[in-house]
Amino acid sequence: MNTPKMQTPPLPKGTRDFYPESMRIQNFIFDIWRKAALRFGYEEYEGPMFEHLELYTGKSGEEIVSQLYDFKDKGDRHIALRPEMTPTLARLVIQKGNSLKKPFKWFSIPRLFRYERAQKGRLREFFQLNLDIIGTESIYAEADLLSAIAYMLMDFGLKTEDFSIGVSSRKLLNAYLAEIGVSEVSKVYPVLDRRLKIEKEDFYSELAATGLSLEQTKKLDQFMDSKSIEEVEAKISSDESKAALDEIKQLFKTLQASGAGKSITLDLSIVRGLAYYTGIVFEVFDKGKSMRAIAGGGRYDSLCEKLGGDKVPGVGFGMGDVVLANLLEERGLLPSSKQSLDFFVASFTNDMDKIFEVAGKFRKLGYSVNHPLSPTKLGKQMEQANAQGAKVVVYVDGEKAPAGGFEYKVLSTGTLGAGTLEEIAQLKV
Amino acid sequence: MNTPKMQTPPLPKGTRDFYPESMRIQNFIFDIWRKAALRFGYEEYEGPMFEHLELYTGKSGEEIVSQLYDFKDKGDRHIALRPEMTPTLARLVIQKGNSLKKPFKWFSIPRLFRYERAQKGRLREFFQLNLDIIGTESIYAEADLLSAIAYMLMDFGLKTEDFSIGVSSRKLLNAYLAEIGVSEVSKVYPVLDRRLKIEKEDFYSELAATGLSLEQTKKLDQFMDSKSIEEVEAKISSDESKAALDEIKQLFKTLQASGAGKSITLDLSIVRGLAYYTGIVFEVFDKGKSMRAIAGGGRYDSLCEKLGGDKVPGVGFGMGDVVLANLLEERGLLPSSKQSLDFFVASFTNDMDKIFEVAGKFRKLGYSVNHPLSPTKLGKQMEQANAQGAKVVVYVDGEKAPAGGFEYKVLSTGTLGAGTLEEIAQLKV
Repeated sequence: MNTPKMQTPPLPKGTRDFYPESMRIQNFIFDIWRKAALRFGYEEYEGPMFEHLELYTGKSGEEIVSQLYDFKDKGDRHIALRPEMTPTLARLVIQKGNSLKKPFKWFSIPRLFRYERAQKGRLREFFQLNLDIIGTESIYAEADLLSAIAYMLMDFGLKTEDFSIGVSSRKLLNAYLAEIGVSEVSKVYPVLDRRLKIEKEDFYSELAATGLSLEQTKKLDQFMDSKSIEEVEAKISSDESKAALDEIKQLFKTLQASGAGKSITLDLSIVRGLAYYTGIVFEVFDKGKSMRAIAGGGRYDSLCEKLGGDKVPGVGFGMGDVVLANLLEERGLLPSSKQSLDFFVASFTNDMDKIFEVAGKFRKLGYSVNHPLSPTKLGKQMEQANAQGAKVVVYVDGEKAPAGGFEYKVLSTGTLGAGTLEEIAQLKV
Repeated sequence: MNTPKMQTPPLPKGTRDFYPESMRIQNFIFDIWRKAALRFGYEEYEGPMFEHLELYTGKSGEEIVSQLYDFKDKGDRHIALRPEMTPTLARLVIQKGNSLKKPFKWFSIPRLFRYERAQKGRLREFFQLNLDIIGTESIYAEADLLSAIAYMLMDFGLKTEDFSIGVSSRKLLNAYLAEIGVSEVSKVYPVLDRRLKIEKEDFYSELAATGLSLEQTKKLDQFMDSKSIEEVEAKISSDESKAALDEIKQLFKTLQASGAGKSITLDLSIVRGLAYYTGIVFEVFDKGKSMRAIAGGGRYDSLCEKLGGDKVPGVGFGMGDVVLANLLEERGLLPSSKQSLDFFVASFTNDMDKIFEVAGKFRKLGYSVNHPLSPTKLGKQMEQANAQGAKVVVYVDGEKAPAGGFEYKVLSTGTLGAGTLEEIAQLKV
């Protein structure tokens, strides 16, 4: 009697399989990310896929646990799959203390996990490019990061008019809140963060509930609507506000010089939910904001201190793979997802050992090569060569081949020829 | 009153941090793996970091759970961090059924997790290159995989005498067991697998406990000690045994032709613990076997069927990063782990905007560039340039620069010069 057949378990909810077609797209994105980061002098790092839970609750509070894949391991440690990379980065910085020469520029392409409702542009498992500059309070660090964002989006083929990097400043917002007499900001920020997602009435009534007067709320609402540096300048008066705005001015000036200026806009409606931002915050959107944010980040000068280390200034951003891929697809900027090969080695007589010998010779020269894996009719071999995107088919036993050489066929043109291994290797097709 | 400072949680046990120095080494290994796999015509794929637990228990039985990072997610699904990639591969194959053109050659570099005692060459979180060929029973699939192993180890700079690929066959062992009258093999295999790890007396007594006679055990012991094809040939008589040996003969012949023959040896002591192997099995060791296996694999023609799909033949191997890195380090084959940059852009007058402008120009040409991130004394700038492995320092405001050009210094030689951006970009240093 047969035992009933097992039901194959499905792909876990909110995660993805990467068959070769989608993997090539993923690698295309990762390659451009990595090359851009290296071109900007960032060094790559990585960490474990999970951390002790306290690393996340220490930064974001207990509420975050509901969004984590957390569990007790067999040694009764409470661990969590990483939902973001910054706490790991902070741990790395704290661990090495002063032996790390600062400032430094690092990047990583972590795989991250959040237990939340899966929806368009938002999965439970995703990848994110992270760039961070640690150890300097200089606004030129922000300029470096924002230049890198603009350059890498252009590397993908996007034009400056395809995306917009909105810049705001927690420092400026704090200073302005002080100016208009709002001192208890911790309750105010979550409302400001939701400002564009809720109705105007709700925004007003929620702020009233935190103790703001109608006039304060009106001023704040108008302030966050400011569209230019001049407009802000006309609204502020304190030295703190002016200093924070000067920083933004310098940032915009440097970004003009770096060639990234066209994509930058002032957008004081940006708050960023995470409580640990202390200065400039920014978000990158497709023009028209038809999708979720492509990237977001900001300055977090207190994070290391919060996690048990010394105070170390830092600034960084994350750019997810899902929204970016959607945008690139929409703009027709994704490459072909088909396999490609330099050579397919075939045989009229199914001389398998000869096939392996010749394939080895081409591979030793660095070329990508495939061949049949069992005796196969020639028609079928040609089918395989085409399906695998081979440029040239090399026949190991063609009668017209020169001594030590081979007949070949260029698949794109159908051209037949014969030559030595070296001649065939040099074929420009 | 200050709240007591948080204690930074440590790196989770059995996992690793990759600071940039170790990340460069890791990328060196991954790059060679990936290039070799692509050169052999394998296509990359990936899957989720965790699967439903049944995918692993379905393949390996309930005992495996003790070695897994398994947990219930917030939707009460019992999931496990993947301990190996093959079950995910099988799921991918089963899901697509006949729409996947077979045979096909795939590779992946999964991050894997096993909850076990951390020790030298064995961690709880590690990476593994996997190559698999799905959809053919042909022995040329094994030849392709073993050639790829030999070639990629040589790509790392290892010589054929540095490693040895031991080949055995479950089919041959099964046929020989039948020849000597052993029919109940499922209890015998675990003992055969431990043969070289336990005392000879224990091997004999454990086999006796499974019902083998002393003579059967002696024959088996001698058979597994066979050092050559000729030696095996003299010991076998059944058609099944001969057919299985013929397969090995063909494999060795093809590997000679492919240029990978020198590393291949017959080693019938190899059994491989996993119950699902059905044909050729193999393990790769450093010569002298001073370390754990560098790689191991074999044929698994029943796996998809076991996991709820149709019967689909498959063969593959895994090569971990930890043992390989240890071996390469021991042989002095790891590259420098230092950062390197094409250009460092400096300024005598701390003209930060000009620095960003010039850095942008070199980056647009594809070069890697760094520069100070705040106004910095020239001596300190030169220190940074050296520490970051820059080849050339470009001064944005040197007085001897031609119109639109720059002064520069080649750091390896100390040579000073001046030229246009294009001339400097062309410098061969």
